[in-house]
Amino acid sequence: MRYKITLSYDGTPFSGWQIQPNAPSIQESLQRVLGILLKEEIAVTGAGRTDAGVHAVGYVAHFDGPEGLDTAALGYKLNAMLPREIAVHCVAVAAPDFHARFDATERSYKYFIHRVHDPFLDRYSWRCPYQLDINAMNEACRYLPGRRDFSCFEKVGGANKTSVCDVRYAAWKTYVPTHVTELGYPCREGDYLVFEIRADRFLRNMVRAIVGTLVEIGRGRREPAWMAEVLASGNRSSAGESVPGHALFLKEVEY
Amino acid sequence: MRYKITLSYDGTPFSGWQIQPNAPSIQESLQRVLGILLKEEIAVTGAGRTDAGVHAVGYVAHFDGPEGLDTAALGYKLNAMLPREIAVHCVAVAAPDFHARFDATERSYKYFIHRVHDPFLDRYSWRCPYQLDINAMNEACRYLPGRRDFSCFEKVGGANKTSVCDVRYAAWKTYVPTHVTELGYPCREGDYLVFEIRADRFLRNMVRAIVGTLVEIGRGRREPAWMAEVLASGNRSSAGESVPGHALFLKEVEY
Repeated sequence: MRYKITLSYDGTPFSGWQIQPNAPSIQESLQRVLGILLKEEIAVTGAGRTDAGVHAVGYVAHFDGPEGLDTAALGYKLNAMLPREIAVHCVAVAAPDFHARFDATERSYKYFIHRVHDPFLDRYSWRCPYQLDINAMNEACRYLPGRRDFSCFEKVGGANKTSVCDVRYAAWKTYVPTHVTELGYPCREGDYLVFEIRADRFLRNMVRAIVGTLVEIGRGRREPAWMAEVLASGNRSSAGESVPGHALFLKEVEY
Repeated sequence: MRYKITLSYDGTPFSGWQIQPNAPSIQESLQRVLGILLKEEIAVTGAGRTDAGVHAVGYVAHFDGPEGLDTAALGYKLNAMLPREIAVHCVAVAAPDFHARFDATERSYKYFIHRVHDPFLDRYSWRCPYQLDINAMNEACRYLPGRRDFSCFEKVGGANKTSVCDVRYAAWKTYVPTHVTELGYPCREGDYLVFEIRADRFLRNMVRAIVGTLVEIGRGRREPAWMAEVLASGNRSSAGESVPGHALFLKEVEY
């Protein structure tokens, strides 16, 4: 019987979703604990890879296990036994042919940037020391949506057959974090930025390379229209540098 | 010449504000870096102690240094050299008799609790596994304001001459953290609680003992009126257990 797990994780201590030799991963943690609880070897399939240090909210995975599991009890036990950086929200019976990766129709990511020195955000947001022109970055975002080849933002060595993705949304907004509203942390308008991008699929390193490219534009080192050139080039080396993974969240997987 | 520093810190790696032998403290970090920058021994006086692991936003300290310092440049250099868990917001010339501790007229603290499994909050909020009745806790809070003896909430061994404090405000509210609004982290209303308390001064461990006592009431193990008994007892052992320090923030010092 197929089961679906919805979970969130703080990626800080993991080298990514996917099992790797000699490195902690979310997939390995889940398989190990499910194996103990169900007393058989369990293979867990996730909605997709996330890189080392990247976080996820509402991540979806599936596994095949014995019929008639008490899913509520299983969720409770998983939370008790998994590393505290992983939170299981729900375990439910899925359709026999449900596939966490192939059935996903859209994924969304958010990337957080703070421009002010802020110790309370260092774990989940990237401190960007430059002045950023959010309007210029949003102008550049307008080149992203559409079904096109994104190999300019694909990490060299990615094993994908195709680099075509259908980007549906990309934009920057400002936001106000909890410790500003609740604690009065001193900041100015625009010190906290968040980038959201939605697509049918993402290539390896794609969001971080896009953000790095947008930051080049936000800093004023390039014009917004440079984004069109980068996209047309199909060449990773023409885009900006990748930004760090600890500020990236897989936000949602839609089916 | 006297200078005033306004700063925030993530208390996680520190054993508290105050210098202690063989343990990292915020005071020691500041004195060490100021000593290097100003090339003389500098004594820094803070608005008050904070316990190990407790955080602060808008903390105030003063020191005496050479006349005519470039305060903006000093603030910049401090941020570059201090541990990343400390953020200096402002260095300014103060009145010659300004005293960060004795001149403070009010301090406020906030204590954060989450009731749901949430890896993104574990660093700054206490996961309380019990159902909490916020109305009962707020009813009990009504016994706190006023100038009275708070030795029932003072850590035994506190070296204060008097245990009288003037509590001006104490209440619980619900709040919604950033990763719920920005990332849709699954939760229910009331999963995130914050307690605020304001007073002219606080005794050692006082806020954490008050929160622990209120949690006993919130869990339903005691009635709200128990707070009056605890206060009247003057005895630390009659109150609830202290809650952990990592969820406590010194929020503001007023002068």
